[in-house]
Amino acid sequence: MPRFSPDGLVLPVPPKSKTRERILQASLELFNAQGERSVTTNHLAAHLEMSPGNLYYYFRNKQMIIAELFARYEQEVDGFLKLPEGRSVTIEDKTRYFEALLSVMWNYRFLHRDLEHMLSSDQELAERYRLFARRHLHSAQYIYQGFVDAGILKMTTLQVEALATNAWIVMTSWMQFLCTVTTEADGAPDKDMLKRGIGQLLALEEGFVTESARSAFNDIRQRLR
Amino acid sequence: MPRFSPDGLVLPVPPKSKTRERILQASLELFNAQGERSVTTNHLAAHLEMSPGNLYYYFRNKQMIIAELFARYEQEVDGFLKLPEGRSVTIEDKTRYFEALLSVMWNYRFLHRDLEHMLSSDQELAERYRLFARRHLHSAQYIYQGFVDAGILKMTTLQVEALATNAWIVMTSWMQFLCTVTTEADGAPDKDMLKRGIGQLLALEEGFVTESARSAFNDIRQRLR
Repeated sequence: MPRFSPDGLVLPVPPKSKTRERILQASLELFNAQGERSVTTNHLAAHLEMSPGNLYYYFRNKQMIIAELFARYEQEVDGFLKLPEGRSVTIEDKTRYFEALLSVMWNYRFLHRDLEHMLSSDQELAERYRLFARRHLHSAQYIYQGFVDAGILKMTTLQVEALATNAWIVMTSWMQFLCTVTTEADGAPDKDMLKRGIGQLLALEEGFVTESARSAFNDIRQRLR
Repeated sequence: MPRFSPDGLVLPVPPKSKTRERILQASLELFNAQGERSVTTNHLAAHLEMSPGNLYYYFRNKQMIIAELFARYEQEVDGFLKLPEGRSVTIEDKTRYFEALLSVMWNYRFLHRDLEHMLSSDQELAERYRLFARRHLHSAQYIYQGFVDAGILKMTTLQVEALATNAWIVMTSWMQFLCTVTTEADGAPDKDMLKRGIGQLLALEEGFVTESARSAFNDIRQRLR
């Protein structure tokens, strides 16, 4: 992200934040590839060809790196998991939501693969996650209700509430589910497997799609198979 | 379970297996109450007022206890997660399945609260769990298909497949979901919270219930609210 001077000129990125960013990017890559639990700050430093002391200058411990990555994940989700302003949702928005979800879940896949472990070793993160989850269980409810109001789904308020909860569980548990039912011989989870998770989300609402929206819904469903 | 002599007399339980059983029961209780990760074999021995050496005589390590408890859980699930023999399923069977599920998920709730951790520290258990999950993803599919064949649900084969997967994910992730969105102030997860999980399972199929089965389905749904 470029920084600007008061008169609008792009400022050079100071070396300090460049290193900080490099550490965060490498952490994200290694956590995603190997699982957060198997990556120590020493591994990270070695991977970055940096002394552990230099790494320590930017992040006192691994928890601080995870907290920063979680903040970015949270910000991305906050950015798209809401109703469009000033207009009704359309069936095209459904694709937009699912693509944004797919992208963020893939980019931060280490988070949901071993969430219980990360939260149990960091009280502060656990509390932030709890607020994040509660907030977006509500977002999901508003969005599904938006689809009901737009005549795309036909559901009662109680059904919308249950659907939002199930969607949250399926989305956040999908990576872990894959890890428990596949072996290493099946290969590491790839983006196509995550796409199947989006298909599972669509299955949740499939029984509630109205007649008028069915053909457009089936097109999306087909594309995700 | 009583043992019988060849001429049908009930044999006394040998002291060895009585102690073994006592260790298993205490482990199950402590794992469920405190989480498997926080209970060591030393805690267990102290709780049982037994020397660690005596405990070690029956189980060389905690993994062996977990493996035995998992075998029992597996046996219970194998016992009910199948279609009735020689007749079609009825809507009453739905209640029976859900009650059996509720009971086994409650009795072995430590298993799904921190599954990733347990499987990542025991390759053999991970492989057994993988086979167990794959087998019962199929059972769930057969059972839902049974409800389609009995005219209770109206779904395509692909929809049945997606439903079975979602049901598996929601059921096995429900305890973990509760743990990430509730605080200690909300109290420890109790059986009523697990019952809400069964309600979430019903929500998955709600959009596919046929007209003729709707009123009976709503009765079950109501009972689980």
